[in-house]
Amino acid sequence: MAPKISIRGTNQPASPMRRLEPLFLQAKEVRKRIYQLNIGQPDIETPEEYLKVIKNLQEKVIKYGPSAGLPEYRKTLANYYRSYGINVDWEDIVVTTGGSEGIIFVLTAICDPEDEVIIPEPFYANYNGFANMANVKLVPVTSKPENGYALPPIEEIEKKVNSKTKAIIICNPGNPTGYAYSEEEIENLKDLCRKHSLFLVSDEVYREFVYEGKHNSILEKEGFEEYGIITDSLSKRFSLCGARLGCVVSKNKDIISSITKMAQARLCPPTIEQLAAIEVHKLGKDYYSKIREEYKLRRDTVMKHIEEIDGAFCKIPNGAFYMLVKLPIKDCINFATYMLKDFELDNETVLVAPGNGFYATQGLGMDEIRIAYILNKNDLDRAMVILKEGLKAYRKERGL
Amino acid sequence: MAPKISIRGTNQPASPMRRLEPLFLQAKEVRKRIYQLNIGQPDIETPEEYLKVIKNLQEKVIKYGPSAGLPEYRKTLANYYRSYGINVDWEDIVVTTGGSEGIIFVLTAICDPEDEVIIPEPFYANYNGFANMANVKLVPVTSKPENGYALPPIEEIEKKVNSKTKAIIICNPGNPTGYAYSEEEIENLKDLCRKHSLFLVSDEVYREFVYEGKHNSILEKEGFEEYGIITDSLSKRFSLCGARLGCVVSKNKDIISSITKMAQARLCPPTIEQLAAIEVHKLGKDYYSKIREEYKLRRDTVMKHIEEIDGAFCKIPNGAFYMLVKLPIKDCINFATYMLKDFELDNETVLVAPGNGFYATQGLGMDEIRIAYILNKNDLDRAMVILKEGLKAYRKERGL
Repeated sequence: MAPKISIRGTNQPASPMRRLEPLFLQAKEVRKRIYQLNIGQPDIETPEEYLKVIKNLQEKVIKYGPSAGLPEYRKTLANYYRSYGINVDWEDIVVTTGGSEGIIFVLTAICDPEDEVIIPEPFYANYNGFANMANVKLVPVTSKPENGYALPPIEEIEKKVNSKTKAIIICNPGNPTGYAYSEEEIENLKDLCRKHSLFLVSDEVYREFVYEGKHNSILEKEGFEEYGIITDSLSKRFSLCGARLGCVVSKNKDIISSITKMAQARLCPPTIEQLAAIEVHKLGKDYYSKIREEYKLRRDTVMKHIEEIDGAFCKIPNGAFYMLVKLPIKDCINFATYMLKDFELDNETVLVAPGNGFYATQGLGMDEIRIAYILNKNDLDRAMVILKEGLKAYRKERGL
Repeated sequence: MAPKISIRGTNQPASPMRRLEPLFLQAKEVRKRIYQLNIGQPDIETPEEYLKVIKNLQEKVIKYGPSAGLPEYRKTLANYYRSYGINVDWEDIVVTTGGSEGIIFVLTAICDPEDEVIIPEPFYANYNGFANMANVKLVPVTSKPENGYALPPIEEIEKKVNSKTKAIIICNPGNPTGYAYSEEEIENLKDLCRKHSLFLVSDEVYREFVYEGKHNSILEKEGFEEYGIITDSLSKRFSLCGARLGCVVSKNKDIISSITKMAQARLCPPTIEQLAAIEVHKLGKDYYSKIREEYKLRRDTVMKHIEEIDGAFCKIPNGAFYMLVKLPIKDCINFATYMLKDFELDNETVLVAPGNGFYATQGLGMDEIRIAYILNKNDLDRAMVILKEGLKAYRKERGL
């Protein structure tokens, strides 16, 4: 008898962002163009400063680096955080292979199997995959489209706390919601964590993508040193998705010590990427401003089109480069599939991510889609026209 | 009250290869040179063909690649395996971020928390870290220095099988033993796995480093498709330790499907490294032969010195670039520390890895050290002279 894989191996969820990939590949064969609004792969060029280091590489041997990352790179990161008033030392930082590895390390360091973590939903769907691998239970608290997916009332969150609860995890600004938490929301979360001895894990990879007002990090103010853990990544900030560089930041020595040992087991993050990443951090805040303006333009472009759709709703998001849009439909998977298989405008169509994949509560999000506004203004204009026409045709066909 | 980290987070073991690092750094300040025989970082140059791709990079955006790896790279890997009679398709391969990630994925895919995996000891110490993270219990079966750490009698292994046992994991050729399993040993393991419905996981990163005779892979012969899983890495084969490229290979569809979903959660392995790795595989078997000759010379260099040490024992290892040496000492950590802190020959000394760190059974390996013969012949000659003199002085001082 053949051996069986594990229960968690069997239960490992597929990525909802990538679930339509087979249909997408088929459609690509026959369509002139498919505008991909389903994944967060920016079209912005990787900074020349990064590519220059790679191209001028002097090393003759691509060696192991230190498990926690090259000290010079960790020092660069500490300076970066301090420039935002996040007062950390380089020893408070462990470099990870992408933000993803950081989240796995953090879940493992704070939870034993069957422990629970509270998370506002809708949330970044891959947290489901990480939690399943680590046998951690994600407990959702639903945020609402009507108020732009703001933090649910703190009492609703507190109701979910029990003896198994180890942490609250947020993504700020949020993927897929685009919501940027206010200072008050962050302070409320901190108070709750202090009250119940919980870690607060904040995924802040979109820190620079806040369009009005400032980003509020959990580690900006003093007095939260034992509780706060930031996970981070260069992927979106510098268009470095394929470089696989992220980090975990915490003033809690036990967390950093434990994660450093996990990092030792897997030896090191990619070496030459770290050398290049040191350089790219010299670009400074002018670089972020320029990128931010570009994404703001893109956001406003998409919003303009959404406002023209009868029955569509999306409160204007203030961060990241995603928005969840409520549409006058009943089954977003069916609609996304229709757009790929059955609809075309001048032989072009659009790929969106079904909204339900970002909810843990069954049945929620069925009338929502996630749009990643990662194309330039012209392409977005065109993509949104196709989406509008497609929606019209879909509703007519389905009698909606 | 500050929140506490998890039990597994607390128990995460430090790497025994890196445990002497603080002392090493202190010694570096005062010594002219420290010959590092403690870690498997080869001094061999990364092939020019690899560096050329990196230096000529045309991409303007370092993008996400497919989660299971670039199809062209997976096809390159399939050809590589087929050239060794390992008959796999590219869809049987998932590219991982280093061999380490592959081992974590495999443990998670085959084991739920509290499940057990049988492993011959001494073994690659980082398996302890991976198993702890995944809440898997490693059950050691001791192999003996007298017969060069050959596979323990199959009955001894079978005695450890119970209802929690999911797999047997081997490293072939072995780190830290240098032992290359015979065809008969591999067949015996396969029979045992078939009999008890167990997976056989084989870490084959040192495939090309077998000095006499051929390497015996678990996937060479037919009829084991449902049972066999290979984990692999480019780190040693092409001196690419810092590139972080590995893979998992299996004909078992459930394994590959589950691991692909884990791979989706963490998005992708490093992109430009894969582009370069495609090229390096074109070097072919002449490249491996040259490297193998070099390491064989190094092995023989070290062996010659060991034979001259009274009371030292090591059966000549046939693979990888490690050897475990029994020395006339009682505490290898104390001896390794002595070499760093108290001994010098013309202001030079040697760093070795204490042997006990490679055993799961407490008390074993206290009179063993691991030597990684990753330096050139001249350096190894010098390092071994220092080691011999150091051992002499140590034994005299300790009254051994």
